[in-house]
Parts: sequence; C-alpha cells; structure tokens
Amino acid sequence: MSSLKIALVQTQAHEDRKENLKKAILNVEKASALGANIICLPELFLTRYFCQSEDTTCFDLAEPIPGPATNRFCGEAKKRGVFIVCPLFEKRASGVYHNSLVLIDPAGEISGIYRKMHIPDDPGYFEKFYFAPGDTGFSCFETGFAKIGTLICWDQWYPEAARIASLKGADIIFYPTAIGWHTNEDEHSKKTQLEAWKTVQRAHAISNGIYVAAVNRVGFEESGENSGGIDFWGNSFVCDPQGAVISEASGNREEIILADVDLRKLEETRRNWPFLRDRRIDAYSELRQRFIDNDSGT
Amino acid sequence: MSSLKIALVQTQAHEDRKENLKKAILNVEKASALGANIICLPELFLTRYFCQSEDTTCFDLAEPIPGPATNRFCGEAKKRGVFIVCPLFEKRASGVYHNSLVLIDPAGEISGIYRKMHIPDDPGYFEKFYFAPGDTGFSCFETGFAKIGTLICWDQWYPEAARIASLKGADIIFYPTAIGWHTNEDEHSKKTQLEAWKTVQRAHAISNGIYVAAVNRVGFEESGENSGGIDFWGNSFVCDPQGAVISEASGNREEIILADVDLRKLEETRRNWPFLRDRRIDAYSELRQRFIDNDSGT
Repeated sequence: MSSLKIALVQTQAHEDRKENLKKAILNVEKASALGANIICLPELFLTRYFCQSEDTTCFDLAEPIPGPATNRFCGEAKKRGVFIVCPLFEKRASGVYHNSLVLIDPAGEISGIYRKMHIPDDPGYFEKFYFAPGDTGFSCFETGFAKIGTLICWDQWYPEAARIASLKGADIIFYPTAIGWHTNEDEHSKKTQLEAWKTVQRAHAISNGIYVAAVNRVGFEESGENSGGIDFWGNSFVCDPQGAVISEASGNREEIILADVDLRKLEETRRNWPFLRDRRIDAYSELRQRFIDNDSGT
Repeated sequence: MSSLKIALVQTQAHEDRKENLKKAILNVEKASALGANIICLPELFLTRYFCQSEDTTCFDLAEPIPGPATNRFCGEAKKRGVFIVCPLFEKRASGVYHNSLVLIDPAGEISGIYRKMHIPDDPGYFEKFYFAPGDTGFSCFETGFAKIGTLICWDQWYPEAARIASLKGADIIFYPTAIGWHTNEDEHSKKTQLEAWKTVQRAHAISNGIYVAAVNRVGFEESGENSGGIDFWGNSFVCDPQGAVISEASGNREEIILADVDLRKLEETRRNWPFLRDRRIDAYSELRQRFIDNDSGT
C-alpha cells in the first residue's frame, strides 16, 4: 500500500478533564469512521494548557505510561483498528515529569514513546518548570503504512529534529502543538507569528522530502492568576513533500481535518529534489556546538 | 551602527563575458549611489550558466583568486567604499575548480573566500562535473556593519549550512543563486518550485533569527546542444528574522533591490523567539550520518 489517510483532531480544551477525554474518544471514533488510518491529537489535549503559570499542584494532572489515559486509548485503537498519536503529561517518577506522547497501534499496544526534547520557556509558556527534557532522541516508528516521526510543539522550530527523524526514515512527521497569541498582541504581529509557524514546518517538509502534519488546539484559555490568557490559533495543517498545504483547519473552531498521504509523491519529490544525497556530513560537526565564538572566516 | 543597507543585483547573463563584467561594474556603481553598504551579485554572473551541459572547454571560463575579475571588483569596491559579494568560477589548480565567491572590503582587499559546499547534479545543472566540493566550511565574515554568512545556491536547501553560519555569528546570510525552470514544466509545477525555494530560505531566517538575502539571475538561457534551456526565475528577495519578505524583485527583469537590515530587529526577534537557547546539542550527533538504517524507535 502506498497511500494512507491521516486525521488531525483540532480541539479546544475545557476545565473538566473527563469532558476532554470523552470528546477525544468521540473524535477518534469520528475520524475512524471517515477512514483515517492514523489519528493525531493535540499536545496535552486532556487538560487546559496549565503552563501559563508555575503551580506545583498541576503535577497532579500527570499520569504514568501506561496508565488510565493510555489504557483508554489503547482500547479505542483496538476497537477501531487505527493508530493513535496520543500526547499526554507523563509522570515518570516523583520529580521527573515529561511532555510526552505515545503511539498506539491497531492491536491496542503502545508501540512507541516520545518525550519532548526541546523545552520552551517564555512568558505564558513556563514549560521548563514542568517538563524534564526528553531523553528519547528523535524517534521514528514503523506503522506498516509508513514510518512516522513524532515531535512536539517547540520541536517544530528546530530543523535538527526534523532532519534526524527523516534520516531514521520518517515519511510523515506529526507535531502535536499548543501555540497561540497573547491577548495584547496586534494583528500584524499575530499574522507574522502564524505565518512563521507554518513556514518553518513547511520548510521541514521541503528540505527532507516528507509530509508534515501539525495539530494545534484552538480557542481562548486562561489558567492561573494574572496569566492574561492565550488565544490558541488552530490552523492545523498537512503539507506534502514540496511544502504545499494539502489540508488546513480554521483558526477558530474545533474540527477534524483529513489528508491522503501518498508515498509515491514522496518518492517522486526526492528523485527530483535529491537533497539528502548531497548533505556534507563531513562538515556538520559544528552543529553540536552551542555557539561558535570568534570564528575568523577563511 | 545598528542598521545598514544591502543591495541585490538581479541580472541576466549574456554570451559576451565582457558585457557581463561591464554591466556588473555599472550595477555596483548604481547600488553604491543608492546608499548600499554591501552589494551582492548572482552566482557565476560573469558567464551564461554553462552547467547545462558537460563540456571540458568550459573550464576556460574559470580564473584564479586573486585574478583579473577579482582585481577589477577590488578596485571598484575601494572606489565606492562598499563591500562586494562577488561570485565566480574559480580555477584553483588544473583539475580543481570551484563554484566560489569572494568577499571584497571597502579597502579593496579580499577579506574572505567561500567555496560552494553542496554541489547539485540534475538534468541541466551538471555541477558535479565542473565543481569540486568546497573545503571552506560554512563561513561568516565581519564587515564592521554586521557579520555576514555567504552560501551559494544549492546550499539554500540545507538547514545545516544556515545553522552553522548563524552559530558563527552571521546576522545576514547571502545566497547568490542561479535557479530556474525547465521549459517543459507546467504552471502549477513552476509555482510550487518557486514557493518552495522562498519558503525554505525564509525558514532559515526564522529558525536562526537572521536576515536572509537571495540573489538570483533572470531570463532564458540555452547553452550546449539539446540543453533545452532554463528560464531563470529572478524573484530575488530579502526577509527579516521573522521570515517576513521586506524587499522583492520581479520574475522577469533585471533590477537592483535594496533592503535596510536592522540589527535591533534581530535582537528583538531572538529575545522573543529564543530558539538558539534551547538547541539539544547533546542529541544531534546523528546529523553526521548519511542515513540511519533500521532504527527501531524507543
């Protein structure tokens, strides 16, 4: 089989965790009925985006892998015969929490775990307080349909992550995401940010010759005192190996978007744009440096 | 000084090398009169794009560094008090030719050499026949105004190159280019290619928080028998550290475009999008592999 259907579930998170779980299960059922083979949910979809403030009680929201949430989605994956990319707030040990996801296969088994490698920390996105940096590396998983890379949100700004997943054979990279605007930003700034977000991910598709699927949450959320709130901008999308957007969600409502992933298109693109062939792997060692001081040029 | 003016010279190359040289000198004079501090010419602008076929007599077009062409531009840089990014076909030794550029400073001295690191080879772009892969690494040069990275054409598809130049301190990366469409391509395909070319370079600006300046040639050229010809698509542009295009040329005529580069904008962007802070330099060693076989995931 050279093509498959993927579904991205763009949702709004509510205060009630049970409601979020119930809605996600319903969306998996819907996406499955629409013919999806792989269904991807947004980053930390089970809860409001609690990282708007630093609050130790929020660690109560985390759960182990496997745990109640993954068990529930494993059952659903088996029932529907689908793969589910299921992000969650992972409790690995007391004091060791991660922003993670599990890949669940149609047998209802967890076939992979990814722990967010790049952790942001900005006003309203205090993730370094909550999440230990991932130690999984940049993974790629075999689904039988295609190999999929799974990265999370802030990872999407790093070409290194997309490249390594691609070198491991990823045909598609999924980016579960929680990104939005602060309420005090002007329209021009909002537009620039959204455009940059899409551009940098489309570029990962182009430079690696892969499909990219970004799944964002949507709607306004305020959590914690004086957080000011974040307006999550939706705009989930899928682009093909030439960076052309082939499926796209709105900026203001919950919806499931679908896309057909055609591995023949990937093969054709890489034959015509053979970027992977010409990488100068002898000259990339400096990528492992934080910064290169006082380089004098040639 | 925190801002400077750069000029990109988008030109068509003619059969007569002397005419191309004369026109380039005139364009440097014009750009200088318009207030440019740094002037960048397109890849291999002194000649037609001879790589459309493999022909050993074309090696006659190469010249050493320093040599007649660089001497001419050194004189012009000193006369006008400007920096010139001057690409040329370099003869380094018999059998060792490069697709190179020199950075010439306002004192009329060559202050840097860059030799194209990523060499393409596609129908109509037979560069592996002509050019030995560069051995300069990905350089960055101090101009006093700003640090500039210089890369060439095919390099523009490689985030590794842009990243290393940025880690060396580049505030702006210049990409002298010769890219176009084959004549038998349909409009949809042409549009997709042009959009991908712009997208991948704008993404370098975004993920590194730098300015990017791409300088293409323009117009139809046929060289060699049965080459079919290439319609060079122009569209030279400059984008800011958020990937917003701030200056842009047409797709069908010779022109000089100008842009103001504001290092305060760069500083502001990196404060709000601190991507360089969070790179996982402990986890990037796999970037030095050609491909990673049989990775089993986590």
